[in-house]
Amino acid sequence: MAMPGGFSFRVLGQDAASSARLGQFCLPHGVVHTPAFMPVGTQGTVKGLLPQQLREVGAQIVLANTYHLMLRPGSDTVATLGGLHRMMGWDWPILTDSGGFQIFSLAERAQISDAGAIFRSHIDGASVELTPERAIRVQEDLGADIIMCLDECSAQTTDHAKLVTAVRRTTLWAERCLAAKRRSDQALFAVVQGGVEPELRAESAASLCKLDLPGYAVGGLSVGESHHEMLSVLDHTVALLPEDRPRYLMGVGRPQDIIEAVARGIDMFDCVLPTRNGRNATAFTATGPVRLRNAEHQRSTEPVEPGCPCPTCGQFSRGYLRHLFMADEMLGPILLSLHNVSFFLRLMAEIRQAIAEQRFAAFRSDALARLGA
Amino acid sequence: MAMPGGFSFRVLGQDAASSARLGQFCLPHGVVHTPAFMPVGTQGTVKGLLPQQLREVGAQIVLANTYHLMLRPGSDTVATLGGLHRMMGWDWPILTDSGGFQIFSLAERAQISDAGAIFRSHIDGASVELTPERAIRVQEDLGADIIMCLDECSAQTTDHAKLVTAVRRTTLWAERCLAAKRRSDQALFAVVQGGVEPELRAESAASLCKLDLPGYAVGGLSVGESHHEMLSVLDHTVALLPEDRPRYLMGVGRPQDIIEAVARGIDMFDCVLPTRNGRNATAFTATGPVRLRNAEHQRSTEPVEPGCPCPTCGQFSRGYLRHLFMADEMLGPILLSLHNVSFFLRLMAEIRQAIAEQRFAAFRSDALARLGA
Repeated sequence: MAMPGGFSFRVLGQDAASSARLGQFCLPHGVVHTPAFMPVGTQGTVKGLLPQQLREVGAQIVLANTYHLMLRPGSDTVATLGGLHRMMGWDWPILTDSGGFQIFSLAERAQISDAGAIFRSHIDGASVELTPERAIRVQEDLGADIIMCLDECSAQTTDHAKLVTAVRRTTLWAERCLAAKRRSDQALFAVVQGGVEPELRAESAASLCKLDLPGYAVGGLSVGESHHEMLSVLDHTVALLPEDRPRYLMGVGRPQDIIEAVARGIDMFDCVLPTRNGRNATAFTATGPVRLRNAEHQRSTEPVEPGCPCPTCGQFSRGYLRHLFMADEMLGPILLSLHNVSFFLRLMAEIRQAIAEQRFAAFRSDALARLGA
Repeated sequence: MAMPGGFSFRVLGQDAASSARLGQFCLPHGVVHTPAFMPVGTQGTVKGLLPQQLREVGAQIVLANTYHLMLRPGSDTVATLGGLHRMMGWDWPILTDSGGFQIFSLAERAQISDAGAIFRSHIDGASVELTPERAIRVQEDLGADIIMCLDECSAQTTDHAKLVTAVRRTTLWAERCLAAKRRSDQALFAVVQGGVEPELRAESAASLCKLDLPGYAVGGLSVGESHHEMLSVLDHTVALLPEDRPRYLMGVGRPQDIIEAVARGIDMFDCVLPTRNGRNATAFTATGPVRLRNAEHQRSTEPVEPGCPCPTCGQFSRGYLRHLFMADEMLGPILLSLHNVSFFLRLMAEIRQAIAEQRFAAFRSDALARLGA
């Protein structure tokens, strides 16, 4: 279905027993098959991996963080270097967030008003202002295929009055973002807030949907609430979003979270876990985590995950990876990040195939059982 | 020419104006075209680079350090993991040193006698003994194509009596290494010592050559002496080594050192500089070093070295690499190590071609002038 701005999102298949669906999102730098996972390249690099390696393990789209890039190297520098795609050597779709979430999690002494946010950089303490207009300007400099409206992340509180303010402000800012937008080759998504209150989520979704944007995100989750609270929010929020637009669950998550969110109609995910755990010597496998520093792996000639087709598992043993981590060698984080990212991307491919073949319910229960989740 | 053990080294070309020569060294895991540079994989990994990346930029052979690997993960573990080639995923030639040099540079409280060395591990303080026999046993576990005799590195002193002892002991140990050797698929090299004293170098070379080994190294250089002292030692030492055996200058060096040593008849080199400088944001280029943290590179869309065919220069700008280093991102060291290793390997390829085309003298003076050396 054609969308505002000339992008297109088509729902190609729908699971009979859940809200899981198969989609195809056409963007200026390529097609994203959904449900999709976006490896996180916070500072304009998915930590330790080259673009070619990401592509080889099936990455379709990566995420980069506006907050980090506006502070360093600066969005004007990124623009001078040809924009994010050119700078990173990644000629496929990119999504940038708005910087909103990081203001709440990383910035110092943030002051939020309807006008926007003023905060101190976590890098050098400099005072920085981020308004809806600036968030758009910066993201236009960066040049991603998908950009996000500045939102007030309501996850840090359960105070009803504060949640109400965050929802109202998020809508106000989304309207200003849409008005400030100049480039026609970027799909602008809004972020539904409202904490764990169904009425506020409904209000947020309804007011944002009036803007008729090419996609919608569910924000403020995966920040401390329980797995069940998260699923409960999805249960009543996703149904309020337009069926013909992609739905993105921000910052989520573990394999079991992704599977359950797909079942509730989510199309897009991002999470730092594959690379962060890769640097911390913890492997994702279909049967749960494997800690490679454990002495039991010292002489193991097994791959990280038997049967895994990734370059790491095809060539290297657990014993070698353990050695690399014990010896503090860069190649350990590199190889394990590659496996972990590959694991997430393969999970998504398996999810898509299961939906396409009308066997997602069986896949879901099998996968969760194997994961021990 | 056939050599003891069934290896072969052929001199394919000889420069008319210098001792530079072109060779072909056939080893169990492949052919090494000389003059050759060996990237250093101290702990069984060339820091930050995958075997495939090394191969793509022209690496023919890599070096690994016996001292590090015997302490961690232990040579028995490496053997259990299938030997060094299998463990590293590098199915081409490997050279391991004997551990001698590291005992002098890294180990604590080393006690050296004719029997061997007893020292404390720099990792956990454990007491370790390294005799000529153990050095061979460990290297047989590791399984490299080329292994080195244990030697006493005489570079730490200019005391004549100590140098005499080191030369005598190095010969004694080489004889014991040869006697201890069991595997027939590893080429054993001896190391000529003698500091900067021509008579001692001559004595060392003469006594080691009697062992009729498949190759000879010049040791104890690049440890603090001047460039001219180093070249002076080569001037009188290389001529004492058999013409039909490869000559390896250990731990050297900078591009200008390599070019001058090739002119004096050296065939093989190793050095940590390309990867160490790569991690420290310093690029090797044909016109000298480029420090990528410098502010002047912030907005540079130029590659690290214009015209360089390496994957880093083909895809990424100086501005991006500077950003990666400023943001402490792993990809900076990865990409710059890749360029630097590629630079050294390309230098060797250019040297080989210049010798083959009888224009090494012109190449040498041009290259040194460009380097500002």
